[in-house]
Amino acid sequence: MNTQIDQQSGPVARLARLRDLMQERRYDAVVVRDEASLRWLTGATGVFDYTGEYPHAAFITQDSALLHTDSRYLNSFEENLPEGSPWILDMDELAIPAWVARAAYKLQARVVGIEDDMQIGFYQGILRAAEDRSIALTMPLMHGDIRLMRAIKDAEELELMRQAQAITDAAFTHMVGFIRPGLTEKQIRLELERYMFENGADSLAFDSIVASGPNTANPHAIPSDRVVERGDFVLMDYGAGYRDYRSDMTRTVVLGTPTDKQREIYDLVQRCHETCAAAIHPGVDGHEIHMLSKKIIGDAGYGEYYGHSLGHGVGIDIHELPTFGRLSNTVAEGAVITVEPGVYLPGIGGVRLEDCGVVTKDGYKPFTQSPHDLVVIDC
Amino acid sequence: MNTQIDQQSGPVARLARLRDLMQERRYDAVVVRDEASLRWLTGATGVFDYTGEYPHAAFITQDSALLHTDSRYLNSFEENLPEGSPWILDMDELAIPAWVARAAYKLQARVVGIEDDMQIGFYQGILRAAEDRSIALTMPLMHGDIRLMRAIKDAEELELMRQAQAITDAAFTHMVGFIRPGLTEKQIRLELERYMFENGADSLAFDSIVASGPNTANPHAIPSDRVVERGDFVLMDYGAGYRDYRSDMTRTVVLGTPTDKQREIYDLVQRCHETCAAAIHPGVDGHEIHMLSKKIIGDAGYGEYYGHSLGHGVGIDIHELPTFGRLSNTVAEGAVITVEPGVYLPGIGGVRLEDCGVVTKDGYKPFTQSPHDLVVIDC
Repeated sequence: MNTQIDQQSGPVARLARLRDLMQERRYDAVVVRDEASLRWLTGATGVFDYTGEYPHAAFITQDSALLHTDSRYLNSFEENLPEGSPWILDMDELAIPAWVARAAYKLQARVVGIEDDMQIGFYQGILRAAEDRSIALTMPLMHGDIRLMRAIKDAEELELMRQAQAITDAAFTHMVGFIRPGLTEKQIRLELERYMFENGADSLAFDSIVASGPNTANPHAIPSDRVVERGDFVLMDYGAGYRDYRSDMTRTVVLGTPTDKQREIYDLVQRCHETCAAAIHPGVDGHEIHMLSKKIIGDAGYGEYYGHSLGHGVGIDIHELPTFGRLSNTVAEGAVITVEPGVYLPGIGGVRLEDCGVVTKDGYKPFTQSPHDLVVIDC
Repeated sequence: MNTQIDQQSGPVARLARLRDLMQERRYDAVVVRDEASLRWLTGATGVFDYTGEYPHAAFITQDSALLHTDSRYLNSFEENLPEGSPWILDMDELAIPAWVARAAYKLQARVVGIEDDMQIGFYQGILRAAEDRSIALTMPLMHGDIRLMRAIKDAEELELMRQAQAITDAAFTHMVGFIRPGLTEKQIRLELERYMFENGADSLAFDSIVASGPNTANPHAIPSDRVVERGDFVLMDYGAGYRDYRSDMTRTVVLGTPTDKQREIYDLVQRCHETCAAAIHPGVDGHEIHMLSKKIIGDAGYGEYYGHSLGHGVGIDIHELPTFGRLSNTVAEGAVITVEPGVYLPGIGGVRLEDCGVVTKDGYKPFTQSPHDLVVIDC
């Protein structure tokens, strides 16, 4: 580790930090359903599938950490919770809103912090179940308390993310030797993902973006049957999942000698990337770094062709805090973030250059080791 | 088409049906953020990436259909909305809660139906934005109105789902020739997914489950490095995504001659599957069919080893309405559902047998064409 992270590492330490925060906020309990937050708090790997369907729930007080799941996952939890885990699997009540109300009743919790993204139907379900038990509950929104804690990675997390990124870098090296005219975007995606799975990835960080030619002008292009040709940009935005942690990287390569326009926008994006990366340090406002990227690209005359944010936190989720975007937020030491400016010319093509890395007291240290300079694929 | 679906097909007809429902419910407008519902209403393919991050929002009245997205998707929408689409891309206000409030103000909507899974933080954001504009808004939960409409598939949808399932069946045939002792679960998954991508799949229906030996006892096992051995069950639960629609199938095969116990639980699950499938018809209560499956497996002495639901609707989402589970709900003609009983013996192994298909007036017609009988892989 070349970073100095002195906080204690691992899921038990994280639960203890959450309990400190609960005391500070005067929450008797918190309810957690976000799967990434549950992975972070329990340390269970190989259980969560992040479908966005919320099959699990946790009810946490100073003394108890209760976990509710459904029968499809119960055995997986029993096998995958770390040795000596403080978590108790509690399935006495099948419907989760009623389970939350029951836990609040049994553990005498009255102020129960909830996530801002709790579904309103679920929230109303808890209130109805509490009413059925004549329990007076108040459920304040935590306004990102847990997400803010998750933004600062501990040593164990940084190590997993480094490993995820190493798989991602190796895949890029492999793909530079693979990409050639005549392949479709879908074929390139397939080879990219095959390589990652055969070289250590447990999962994909997200659905890989492989775009070519004019499709590179769509920042979130979905791989198509378009055949890659000489003269094309090929943009790959992808990452590996490793023990529930994710990496995120984008490289844009060119097939054959780049045109002057291709070279111009590539160099601009590269300069923007490197200038912004150098400006990152603990305590900076993410919005300011974002505005710096807008200024660099705007000054070069391409402001209207760069609409997205400069970057975002990464961890168990592909999009975490902090952000380099429209909103002010502090970038702290230990945050893992992407830097990913881009320029997208509709009908022509686009470039994005993205690393991810950690903010240290000495500045931003990318995990990504792949080169920034434009890779030209001879053909 | 061997089913008699006489309702009009396609996204414009769906929007019209939603507007009829809005009139009946006296909603001036509805807000839709669920990506699958947006795909269903807009017909845009190759745009949505279903990350659970809600990058889009729709505001629908009797006369307007406004769509808000973020810059990463804007060009994709412009390219992929069907010819003559009634949808208008409206990005005048960047923050979505403020955009909703502004649309309500401009279109004079006072009763605005919302999805039950709207995030509570977002809901409060709309209320604050409405207050800023001095708008009196009421936002009743729709309690699944749109999900219930989506449960009944039109002819266009059924055709896409048939195609998704055909890819899935072909992959099973391929895998029967591929699986052999010495491969890991991860290697089997990789080949399975490669085959689907090279044979028409746009995406995976969900992260494929490949489990072997004792791991088959975890209904939602994540593929591991376990090496498959002679005598193992190998369970594959997977599907293809095709133009945003999904298929879902599970087959459990055995490597070498099955033991008496393996044969016993396989035959039980097969008998349960076929008995339940034969009992499905329009108007039946999904809960009753689920209870039938519980009874068959319970009567055979394995009740405690079958904890999940018998099945669920499938469509753009992998889990839709109706359900064969704990709750009563009506299974109507045109619903596409899975039937997937299982028995899971911890430490030993498990079996699941799953088809998906459509409910017609003549009963349940599976799309799945792969055999039900136990496939024995010689080795």
